[in-house]
Amino acid sequence: MSEKINCSEVYNQHFPFWDKLSMEDKVYLCKNSSLEHFEKEQPVHGNTGCTGLYIVKEGRLRIYMLSDEGKEITLYRLGKGDICMLSACCVLSSITFDVYVDAEQPSDCYMINGNAFNDISERYLEVKNFALEIAVQRFSDVMWIMQQIVFMSMDKRLAIFLLDECNAVGNDFISMTHEQIARHLGTAREVITRLLRHLASDGAVEVTRRGISIINKKKLRDIAL
Amino acid sequence: MSEKINCSEVYNQHFPFWDKLSMEDKVYLCKNSSLEHFEKEQPVHGNTGCTGLYIVKEGRLRIYMLSDEGKEITLYRLGKGDICMLSACCVLSSITFDVYVDAEQPSDCYMINGNAFNDISERYLEVKNFALEIAVQRFSDVMWIMQQIVFMSMDKRLAIFLLDECNAVGNDFISMTHEQIARHLGTAREVITRLLRHLASDGAVEVTRRGISIINKKKLRDIAL
Repeated sequence: MSEKINCSEVYNQHFPFWDKLSMEDKVYLCKNSSLEHFEKEQPVHGNTGCTGLYIVKEGRLRIYMLSDEGKEITLYRLGKGDICMLSACCVLSSITFDVYVDAEQPSDCYMINGNAFNDISERYLEVKNFALEIAVQRFSDVMWIMQQIVFMSMDKRLAIFLLDECNAVGNDFISMTHEQIARHLGTAREVITRLLRHLASDGAVEVTRRGISIINKKKLRDIAL
Repeated sequence: MSEKINCSEVYNQHFPFWDKLSMEDKVYLCKNSSLEHFEKEQPVHGNTGCTGLYIVKEGRLRIYMLSDEGKEITLYRLGKGDICMLSACCVLSSITFDVYVDAEQPSDCYMINGNAFNDISERYLEVKNFALEIAVQRFSDVMWIMQQIVFMSMDKRLAIFLLDECNAVGNDFISMTHEQIARHLGTAREVITRLLRHLASDGAVEVTRRGISIINKKKLRDIAL
């Protein structure tokens, strides 16, 4: 599962506070670090305790909420260089909600044990600040999703999702099922199927068994506006 | 609009960092402070710049999002002793969304000018930390609302809202119109009217012109569960 990493080099690059730590504390964090690999769809963090902080080296993580009935909604995604902080909930005692984290693509992540990072964050204001700043950035991401949910119709949200997804994967083909898209948007598969049919008849997308091809981005953007 | 306040005494009580500040900086914050009174429904903060930080001395503030079409959703409320930080957005550069703040009841608030507070927060890690901690607490509040919106039916959300409102006002009569409740929950008045009619026929509430009486809290709690 884990292997040795060139710790100081990696952390110096991602943590603006790294130089402020004592040599002892640097060693402590490094000893509590590992490089983890996750297969596509593999769970990274459940709602069970303070897993740890992840730095995405390669791949993509999806952070989502899950209801008791198994309904999901995607809050945000993290890519290369991003840091997942909500999976280290002990560091952020004011975070009282649970999130789930899955690997959306095969992913490699540096991981620091949550309790070890918490130790350090209790002793260095800079570290606490760093953790809080990242959480507040995610707050903004979540508010953007909330705005979409409350204020936008589902066809608009779907158009935004398809355009974002194109951007994220870097081409115009989205290899997802209607069911998967529905889970991202917290709605039913039937709703997505109906809306995609509309978009297809408008010539904006082409729907195949393998996924969705974006044919006309301008049309999608007009809907997303 | 504003009057002299016994600044050091008030801030010592609300700011755990107060003792860490230099005398000069204490004076600076105090000079940039005022006691403001807001009538019921008066706007406290719009989406226009870095108004400032508010400490609720008396009353209640409502923090909400507003769409271009005038649709609203209440994110959370702040009561006596609570601090409104999102109205000082310059302090929290990672907050990229706009919120609106109104006085829900006649309210008295200590206010510190946003730019002055930002100055101080740039120079004291403790102050920055304090501001971030409060924002992260509000993140949790908002996630609770988000969970309700995405995962709960509107009748459940209404039951939770009515119970919370009872708690907040300290009695079993809620003096609000259906329109107001609908705005809180980000839905249409007709929906609230229909759901209240259901609750009334179940004997959970009584609906009058003046507002809503809670008759049977247990029934409401059963729905809210």
